[in-house]
Amino acid sequence: MISPATIALIVSLETAALEKWNNGDPSGYLDLSADDVVYFDPETERRLDGKKALTRYYEPFIGKIKVIKYEMQNVKVQGTDEVAVLTFNLFSYTEEKLIKWNCTEVYQLRDGAWKIIQTHWSFTKAPF
Amino acid sequence: MISPATIALIVSLETAALEKWNNGDPSGYLDLSADDVVYFDPETERRLDGKKALTRYYEPFIGKIKVIKYEMQNVKVQGTDEVAVLTFNLFSYTEEKLIKWNCTEVYQLRDGAWKIIQTHWSFTKAPF
Repeated sequence: MISPATIALIVSLETAALEKWNNGDPSGYLDLSADDVVYFDPETERRLDGKKALTRYYEPFIGKIKVIKYEMQNVKVQGTDEVAVLTFNLFSYTEEKLIKWNCTEVYQLRDGAWKIIQTHWSFTKAPF
Repeated sequence: MISPATIALIVSLETAALEKWNNGDPSGYLDLSADDVVYFDPETERRLDGKKALTRYYEPFIGKIKVIKYEMQNVKVQGTDEVAVLTFNLFSYTEEKLIKWNCTEVYQLRDGAWKIIQTHWSFTKAPF
């Protein structure tokens, strides 16, 4: 089972990283990611493997993202107090448009610290 | 940590379910899915929650899918012997085309049986 404290902690870690990302700073996600993180998003041409690859991949985004408002919807955390599976729909509002996302983050407790071992972002079909 | 036996078992469970799916039969995935499974794919308008919702969602696909060849690429299983995170890229060949997928499946050991608690399918950007 998974404890309410773990659920709250996972959501707070994700929210803090997302808020940095929304202001052009991927360091929150990179700091959270394990060395062996795996990563999918709509732009990746195959699964990215490892924090080094993810760090390189994020470099061009530094300072380029500006999300002015966001809504995490249907937030759910499953799993155990060792491996926690966070899923949600995300509405990201930029100056120009609303982008709707599906997100799955898997966190694992490693040496007392929660690390992301898997990230999967994709577009939600729902019309913009 | 996760044992080689768990890794092999997870891959064999997924492969068996996928091969049924490729022949128009979603029952393999439904049998594997936990009652509280959560699910994303490129057609869902938000996260689907629960096996009942997934069963209804899959109904129109029964007998409609025919994948003549598939390749699971970059297969990786992370996590623990309680919660296992399977990721891969999938090439699905129908008579007409090749569809490239990103896939994340999270399995949890429940009363001695591995159950899918989270499924996330999305399209890979790589050109067809």
